[in-house]
Amino acid sequence: MSQNNKLVVIGGDAAGMSAASKVRRIQKEREIIVFERGRHTSFAACGMPYYIAGQIDHPDRLIARKPEVFRNKQNIDVRTRHEVTRIDTGGKRIRVNNLETGEEFWESYGELLIATGASPMKPDLPGMDADGVFGLSILQTGIDVYNDIGEHKPKKAVIIGGGYIGIEMAEALLARGMDVSLVDMAPQVMATMDPDMASHITDFMLKEGVKVYLEETLERLEKNENGRVSAVVTDKQTLPADLVITGIGVRPNSGLAREAGLETGANDAIRVDKKMRTSVPGIWAAGDCAESYHLISEKPVFIALGTVANKHGLVAGTNISGGDKEFPGVVGTAITKFNNLEIARSGLSEKEAERLGIHFKSATIEARTRSGYYPGSAEIRVKLMVEEATRRLIGGQIVGMQGSGKRIDTIATALTAGMTASQIMDLDLSYAPPFSPVWDPVQIAARQLV
Amino acid sequence: MSQNNKLVVIGGDAAGMSAASKVRRIQKEREIIVFERGRHTSFAACGMPYYIAGQIDHPDRLIARKPEVFRNKQNIDVRTRHEVTRIDTGGKRIRVNNLETGEEFWESYGELLIATGASPMKPDLPGMDADGVFGLSILQTGIDVYNDIGEHKPKKAVIIGGGYIGIEMAEALLARGMDVSLVDMAPQVMATMDPDMASHITDFMLKEGVKVYLEETLERLEKNENGRVSAVVTDKQTLPADLVITGIGVRPNSGLAREAGLETGANDAIRVDKKMRTSVPGIWAAGDCAESYHLISEKPVFIALGTVANKHGLVAGTNISGGDKEFPGVVGTAITKFNNLEIARSGLSEKEAERLGIHFKSATIEARTRSGYYPGSAEIRVKLMVEEATRRLIGGQIVGMQGSGKRIDTIATALTAGMTASQIMDLDLSYAPPFSPVWDPVQIAARQLV
Repeated sequence: MSQNNKLVVIGGDAAGMSAASKVRRIQKEREIIVFERGRHTSFAACGMPYYIAGQIDHPDRLIARKPEVFRNKQNIDVRTRHEVTRIDTGGKRIRVNNLETGEEFWESYGELLIATGASPMKPDLPGMDADGVFGLSILQTGIDVYNDIGEHKPKKAVIIGGGYIGIEMAEALLARGMDVSLVDMAPQVMATMDPDMASHITDFMLKEGVKVYLEETLERLEKNENGRVSAVVTDKQTLPADLVITGIGVRPNSGLAREAGLETGANDAIRVDKKMRTSVPGIWAAGDCAESYHLISEKPVFIALGTVANKHGLVAGTNISGGDKEFPGVVGTAITKFNNLEIARSGLSEKEAERLGIHFKSATIEARTRSGYYPGSAEIRVKLMVEEATRRLIGGQIVGMQGSGKRIDTIATALTAGMTASQIMDLDLSYAPPFSPVWDPVQIAARQLV
Repeated sequence: MSQNNKLVVIGGDAAGMSAASKVRRIQKEREIIVFERGRHTSFAACGMPYYIAGQIDHPDRLIARKPEVFRNKQNIDVRTRHEVTRIDTGGKRIRVNNLETGEEFWESYGELLIATGASPMKPDLPGMDADGVFGLSILQTGIDVYNDIGEHKPKKAVIIGGGYIGIEMAEALLARGMDVSLVDMAPQVMATMDPDMASHITDFMLKEGVKVYLEETLERLEKNENGRVSAVVTDKQTLPADLVITGIGVRPNSGLAREAGLETGANDAIRVDKKMRTSVPGIWAAGDCAESYHLISEKPVFIALGTVANKHGLVAGTNISGGDKEFPGVVGTAITKFNNLEIARSGLSEKEAERLGIHFKSATIEARTRSGYYPGSAEIRVKLMVEEATRRLIGGQIVGMQGSGKRIDTIATALTAGMTASQIMDLDLSYAPPFSPVWDPVQIAARQLV
């Protein structure tokens, strides 16, 4: 018998499927099996708030590619509703549980890719088991929230956590006509932004009708006689609620790997090198369960984003199929919006820079998205941070109206290139009245730093 | 008598006034005189089509800063309606004509900054002297067109030239309810774009109701008994017209400098070094009348854009006031739109690369501006070009719907940093469904090239 060349992938979402697809493009004959715990493959988790808001007509539209397409068109043996419960690294096999039939079996592998993703953290509170309490993770939970709203017509929603999910769900539930409150323990929303930038987000949310309660600690949820949530109790008040969404962050699904003896690192994500190799030969990891490398802090980080997962998968797939590619690293770019307010960041925040002991200077400017006289010209705030010694850009943040957010890509590109504030100010960026003032707001901020 | 330290500026628009303002910030006491031929200072020429379209309520809104503000707040002696007719480099003086009084006089200078701008080229055709024929240059011509439309209510407009002005004026006159034809000698609109990209612009303009006639040579204009234009005659047809706008490009106003013995270069623009010094000591030039340096072709170029003029002015002003700054160079970035179609370019076009003898590879992709399932997701086309030998980016072009155009800034930044296609593909660009697909279209194009 020839050496077992079979590739087994655990997890059928962005990282796992883009790796499997890449391997298939290079190695037409290789046996590839993917075990996915859920019912769906390659779905757009980031689209769920917009589905719940009623802006997307069918949840199927969030599925980039269905299991049968992978099976029929790419000859990738995708098995949904199959949970992997153990990795036997010595025997090069995994234990699989068919969730439909209850059958358990061993599956051997030649190489293994762990792409188990991340799971939302659940607040550890009395009453979390009430009906009407949801965290968003797999596509099914998004569908569950949508259906719950249709069935129970909740009037008062409380969102726990003011991060990306919290803000996007606030927009979604407001769009569904609910009275929306958002509670966070921290003194600001969007912990990845600096407090001065985050305060504009809070102000805007308040103006648009979200009740934002900061620095409140959750104590418990209350339920009514039918077992449905009826209130969220904090250390300061009781908020009536018939729908609760939690969004307090995610953690990597690295338990399976850790139990099998694989090393973990940043935030307990699976430790990988730049080729996406884990500490055990023949086993790779990619996506939200695995570490990334941060180009500015020069440290491993845990970043659970679709962009990163896709790159992880492509790098892993390239190397698994005999190629040679290194993960290029991240600069920590992220973007979201609340109604018309666009929010984006890249690089380090002030808090992150302080933690790393970097001395920095920052400048924040307020400008317009278009020429002041052009219809639709609106506010944009840009904050840039440079390292004091080198004058190199180390971070940037944007909060502003339509057309603001995507300007973060200029900042992300400049960060990657290691540009100084002076070099950013000197960039030949595009200008016409419908698009920008003569000096782009990013350059105005850079100019302030020069 | 101490040495004459007086700074005299010829031209009160972007370059001249930003230089004068910079000098004033550094040298509080220096005497600064600005002679401006027109009535206005620092006006946004790029805004004229939108004023003519009726989207801006008053032409004053296009004036960034009025002469009296410069005089009163910055102590800059701005004299409008004063035309400079001669530079006496030996005597360090200029001849000035007060257009209001007819008075002529000599003004001495310690240092002289020439910022005379550029003028639209006028087609040399019989009938160009008809009423109702306009080129856009100074603010007054924009006001003249606006007033002419109000007074004469033209029904059929012909635009001569399919460049930036032509396209923007087609949008404007369509918005004013006119029947609009656009004629160009070339086989494509937007000569700065490659033909394959330009064809999508033509298609879109046709769909929106502009009659586009390419590869037609103009023969003459006809006028009616009142002296107003009545038709545009080409080698193929006669187009009825009661309003004609010409937009066949601009040429630098370098005659005054050339007559004084200053060297000129690219497209007859005034030759300057990176500090904006001309060939004559003590004389500087900045803005549309002066050369720029192109970072990709590594050659002097003539680029008449507000962004460049502002940078020229800042560099000249810094050096004139004793500082030390070099013009950083351009990469040829430009942006415009026709109705909802956004058009942008940076770096070299195929034609420019061929002329420079650069071997290149290009890739063009069609993608979506947002996630496919997100409302408002629309078409975007991105073309990237890399030098074959180095794989470095040398140019990029974008044509697409809302949210497309400003992505050129990522390309401009990558061009400036000298990135390869692989490095662009690896960038950590922002993604969320309302803003982008998981792989930004710019990265999809880069990936095609890898």
